[in-house]
Amino acid sequence: MSRPYNFSAGPAAIPEEVLTEAAAEMLDWHGSGMGVMEMSHRGKEFISIYEEAEATLRELLAVPSNFKILFMQGGGLGENAIVPLNLSRGGTADFVVTGSWSQKSQKEAARYCTVNIAANNAPDGHTTLPDPASWKLKRNASYVHVCSNETINGVEFQTLPDLKALGSNAPLVIDFSSHVASRPVDWSRVGLAFGGAQKNLGPAGLTLVVVREDLLGHALQACPSAFDYKVVAEHGSMYNTPPTYAIYIAGLTFRWLKRQREGVATGIAAMELRNKAKAELLYKTIDASSLYINKVSPDCRSRMNVPFFLRNESLNDAFLAGAKAHGLLQLKGHKSVGGMRASIYNAIPLAGVQALVAYMREFETSHA
Amino acid sequence: MSRPYNFSAGPAAIPEEVLTEAAAEMLDWHGSGMGVMEMSHRGKEFISIYEEAEATLRELLAVPSNFKILFMQGGGLGENAIVPLNLSRGGTADFVVTGSWSQKSQKEAARYCTVNIAANNAPDGHTTLPDPASWKLKRNASYVHVCSNETINGVEFQTLPDLKALGSNAPLVIDFSSHVASRPVDWSRVGLAFGGAQKNLGPAGLTLVVVREDLLGHALQACPSAFDYKVVAEHGSMYNTPPTYAIYIAGLTFRWLKRQREGVATGIAAMELRNKAKAELLYKTIDASSLYINKVSPDCRSRMNVPFFLRNESLNDAFLAGAKAHGLLQLKGHKSVGGMRASIYNAIPLAGVQALVAYMREFETSHA
Repeated sequence: MSRPYNFSAGPAAIPEEVLTEAAAEMLDWHGSGMGVMEMSHRGKEFISIYEEAEATLRELLAVPSNFKILFMQGGGLGENAIVPLNLSRGGTADFVVTGSWSQKSQKEAARYCTVNIAANNAPDGHTTLPDPASWKLKRNASYVHVCSNETINGVEFQTLPDLKALGSNAPLVIDFSSHVASRPVDWSRVGLAFGGAQKNLGPAGLTLVVVREDLLGHALQACPSAFDYKVVAEHGSMYNTPPTYAIYIAGLTFRWLKRQREGVATGIAAMELRNKAKAELLYKTIDASSLYINKVSPDCRSRMNVPFFLRNESLNDAFLAGAKAHGLLQLKGHKSVGGMRASIYNAIPLAGVQALVAYMREFETSHA
Repeated sequence: MSRPYNFSAGPAAIPEEVLTEAAAEMLDWHGSGMGVMEMSHRGKEFISIYEEAEATLRELLAVPSNFKILFMQGGGLGENAIVPLNLSRGGTADFVVTGSWSQKSQKEAARYCTVNIAANNAPDGHTTLPDPASWKLKRNASYVHVCSNETINGVEFQTLPDLKALGSNAPLVIDFSSHVASRPVDWSRVGLAFGGAQKNLGPAGLTLVVVREDLLGHALQACPSAFDYKVVAEHGSMYNTPPTYAIYIAGLTFRWLKRQREGVATGIAAMELRNKAKAELLYKTIDASSLYINKVSPDCRSRMNVPFFLRNESLNDAFLAGAKAHGLLQLKGHKSVGGMRASIYNAIPLAGVQALVAYMREFETSHA
């Protein structure tokens, strides 16, 4: 029997090839006599793993040379403080609130700077994206924060805002935790991007930060050295001991991403095609159903996180139990919103979504 | 051929049984259809892993019920800021400087509070421990910081200071990163203990904090929520997504520790006997030699980290190359002090130290 499909929102499915490779190398990496977990982070073996991971990610995401790639710790919630500690300069930061994550971000930032809520989709139940032309950005804001994919609410920016066109000179900060590596990033519009690894890149405990070099060196006095982007960048992410094994697994995942193909497309372009196809199939199934409903406006539905509800909520437990019996795992929605959620990250193949929609149709028919 | 012995100072050797078990479960943990890396941290599978790890550690280290066990991120260097952010209340903290790590700790703490250097063994080249009776502790200090084992300098407190007997009411903070779980802890003398996992507990990227409950709830405004001990404790270390896989490996290591026996001693008591025997053998070999020298005062030599030098330093490269050929890895000393260092953590059996001293004698003879 093949492995079940795991729709967890994070920590989430890892490509089976990656896990198989990691298991085989657990006690002895490439004849070194050591497992990766056991290597000094300053030894030549781990340095080679680190450098390959960074270079592969830079190539995959087409990160320009004036951006640093940092491998950090603390996750997205850690970054909610670390970003304003590094970028706010104690001034004002603009926040676009589009769901649970951006809401948490602005709340935490208020410890370190003045927060301006430039837009908020709460009145729509976080089911829309406010038109950038309507954002009330502050002159001289130190940065503008956007969560480019809301994991809980299932709302995704299909294009990143062009702040210059909106009259702002502030750098755009994106929390791309839950859709990093699922589609290309337009770096010309970004100053800093951060994301926990545990959705699309690897294990929990690793945080990716991609930051434009001119934004380094402005940390507040209260910023811990281990979380000062300039210090981290100057030490090649080894000011403190990095989460070595998580970086290794992420590196294997980056290699796996590089190998992916859809027609002539490879890497992230291939993933984007596949992710579009997966999301279209799932949303089409939901929209055609009388049982399932997704409340997000179609133009900003997430390709990665698809929250949906059963119109008859008394069927929730039966739906989840049946899903599990069909090898479809971790479909329960976030406790703050209820219902169901299918997170269809890169590691979920189209076949996984096909299996899910087949089950959903079968369940609907049998419970009509 | 058996696995080489890995004397890395950290990330360091993991017990072979732990790695074997982890490799076998990589794709499917206990029939769940998921690897541990892929599990939601809020699902019942991971919660069971987490709870067992915490309970086993509490039992092993005999952590009293009025202490919280927190699994965090950021490592020892992170804690250098996180401790004063949580405990200093912006007042004065006493630091006993005994080597590189306590030196770094006091430097970082100065961002958040007034630092009083109560004692400093720098004039002795960090080879002694200042007598607690000579420490110049401040009345009303918010805490007293001690690095109970200096990984780089190889200096270890054989007993923790009794601050009350020294006239201080401040809580003792110990950085026990590099000797945690190698010997019992006298919790009656401790307010907070922290340590990176990557030496004696598991993979890098996991930080253990054990903190007395009355010390929670005093964080400075500048403390990131994800690093506020009270917030972390209230959320059972799941305010942000914890480093789940690292916690799992640590949990397997805790189970392994619990199984260890030396005569009638089990667990940490067994490890202490074994660690004493390992350290005695190595120091005896060094002291009996004309080639090798350890400069640390015998009463405060570390059982875990044994720095030593070749009196003829031109032999360093030959020593390391020969060691590697004998399956004795990662013996190079820290760049800041040079020479050699054998870190003989729990995962190094007595046989590993026997192999090391046999090689050292052979090398000395052949290079006399």
